[in-house]
Amino acid sequence: MAQPIDEFGLIRRFFAPLAAGEAGALDLRDDAAILRPDPGCDLVLSADTIIAGVHFPEDMNAGDVARRALRVNLSDIASKGATPRGYMLALQISDAIDENWLQDFADGLAGDQETYRLGLLGGDTTRTPGPLAISISIVGQVSENNMIQRAGARPGDDVYVTGTIGDAMLGLAVLQGRLVPPDVVTRDGLVTRFVLPQPRVAAGSRLVGLAHAAADVSDGLVADLGHICEASGLAADICLEDVPLSDAARSAVTVDQPLRLSLLAGGDDYEIVFTAPVPLRTDIASVARETGVAMTHIGEVVERDSRDRPVRVFDGSGRELDTGHGGYRHFERQVPQGT
Amino acid sequence: MAQPIDEFGLIRRFFAPLAAGEAGALDLRDDAAILRPDPGCDLVLSADTIIAGVHFPEDMNAGDVARRALRVNLSDIASKGATPRGYMLALQISDAIDENWLQDFADGLAGDQETYRLGLLGGDTTRTPGPLAISISIVGQVSENNMIQRAGARPGDDVYVTGTIGDAMLGLAVLQGRLVPPDVVTRDGLVTRFVLPQPRVAAGSRLVGLAHAAADVSDGLVADLGHICEASGLAADICLEDVPLSDAARSAVTVDQPLRLSLLAGGDDYEIVFTAPVPLRTDIASVARETGVAMTHIGEVVERDSRDRPVRVFDGSGRELDTGHGGYRHFERQVPQGT
Repeated sequence: MAQPIDEFGLIRRFFAPLAAGEAGALDLRDDAAILRPDPGCDLVLSADTIIAGVHFPEDMNAGDVARRALRVNLSDIASKGATPRGYMLALQISDAIDENWLQDFADGLAGDQETYRLGLLGGDTTRTPGPLAISISIVGQVSENNMIQRAGARPGDDVYVTGTIGDAMLGLAVLQGRLVPPDVVTRDGLVTRFVLPQPRVAAGSRLVGLAHAAADVSDGLVADLGHICEASGLAADICLEDVPLSDAARSAVTVDQPLRLSLLAGGDDYEIVFTAPVPLRTDIASVARETGVAMTHIGEVVERDSRDRPVRVFDGSGRELDTGHGGYRHFERQVPQGT
Repeated sequence: MAQPIDEFGLIRRFFAPLAAGEAGALDLRDDAAILRPDPGCDLVLSADTIIAGVHFPEDMNAGDVARRALRVNLSDIASKGATPRGYMLALQISDAIDENWLQDFADGLAGDQETYRLGLLGGDTTRTPGPLAISISIVGQVSENNMIQRAGARPGDDVYVTGTIGDAMLGLAVLQGRLVPPDVVTRDGLVTRFVLPQPRVAAGSRLVGLAHAAADVSDGLVADLGHICEASGLAADICLEDVPLSDAARSAVTVDQPLRLSLLAGGDDYEIVFTAPVPLRTDIASVARETGVAMTHIGEVVERDSRDRPVRVFDGSGRELDTGHGGYRHFERQVPQGT
């Protein structure tokens, strides 16, 4: 049924080298890989699939496809405080894929394996009449019982987010011709944020024992903070002006104020949104300093009460903004700020 | 980028119930699952993808698709002696998939989860413009350092195979109209062997400490025994007449003798081919008796020497048969036997 004609050849040539550092991968010559967490550790598993034309442009280069596939998975386990161990790669290759593409794809994986210190454990290569698809199951580890869950938030916790929010959404808008940046540096910076997520692996692992709850920002800041709130049976209030923006995003929202609120729904940021108790503010600041990753206090965890949505967004003057149905808008007309 | 419109709804309605028995799956409400092997155990990981129109007929019912996807993965870890723990499900659903299909699919998984005692750990649901595809990463466990590898065969080992060989290939031929069975019972039996693999989970786990090497028979008996030989740096000689056939297969090869040899290349049997030292023959027989799974001695492991292919097949009179390029044929013309 399958087309084994060259699957073994593909594995030997392109993928076995990616497993060379993993004794348990058995050189990809077995039916399965062996994996044992380090003593005192739990394993942390997550899976994400990306499909050409759905999750990334069909003409994205093979190296970027590889890195994107791996990094969206790395982001999931980074937000849990886990350190990467390895991954299973299920690759569905379309007719358009040739050996050059596979070599670039494997090279992309090899580079990120070194950057993020993990190895290929095993997987599966199939030919598909459909679009190219890459499905990865990633394995990380964290000290026993210490995975940072979504469900751990407590009332009164500070809410933080790493890095900056909205750049990936703006990068996609640039790629789609909906936004024209003022210069090529800004353009490249935004596009790169969309194309190549920077999973917060080092910073995430430092949040173990500090953060009460965390999630990666893939669906959008409000949505992913909402997931933490739902899982914890709580709610959160955040301040729009406190949400950290890059210089590029800041200049974009200066021109288009309503855009500022919509960046909170943007998705693809691959930052970490987390909650931590107030007494740990200096510890969080230390982690930010030592890892070089900004950790910005954007709000508080509160009781859920009877409110209809888990995350409320306020502006600097204390007015609640409508983050509801049909896109983001102010409850009241306001003079644009900062112009 | 993704279509989150109803992904959360799908997860809550169809998939969260499949994770209910797995504390580490966190009710599928987190970014990741937590997994810890039992004390003294290694984890065993394998991944297999099946695609509609490539690995199974596009009109196969949803429950059978679910079972097939899970069972081809169960077969991999069964052949390693591992006991199932859980699985990650990456589901790519096409436009043709509706809620009824998803319910039947989930029901199929639920039934097999109970049969094989494992739970859903996590995963990912995406919409695809291509064909339906199911990618599973399965996790089993086995006592530390005891996974049965392909590479462990030793010269002089007996070669065994579980169950019967070739039924799935004949079942596919029936489905494709290339073979007309004599009666409906035979027809259904063969088709079921193709559609619904019976992974040898219980038998496989009993081979730990007995088998030196093992693989599941997915590519075909000769090919998969060849994988064991290649990984072990050895070769194997097997006897065509010793390869166990079902009554249905036996009656088919009575009519068409050359078919007998081609069954050894058939694939999709999902039996276990393994090697074990000669002094353990009575132990292997005990396992077969206690598990109710036939374990048939079909040959021996030998030194590789300078032979060009790792597995040689002999007939009952000691003549080597050509299992080589372009299909299977005798080296010499022979009078068909058994007619």
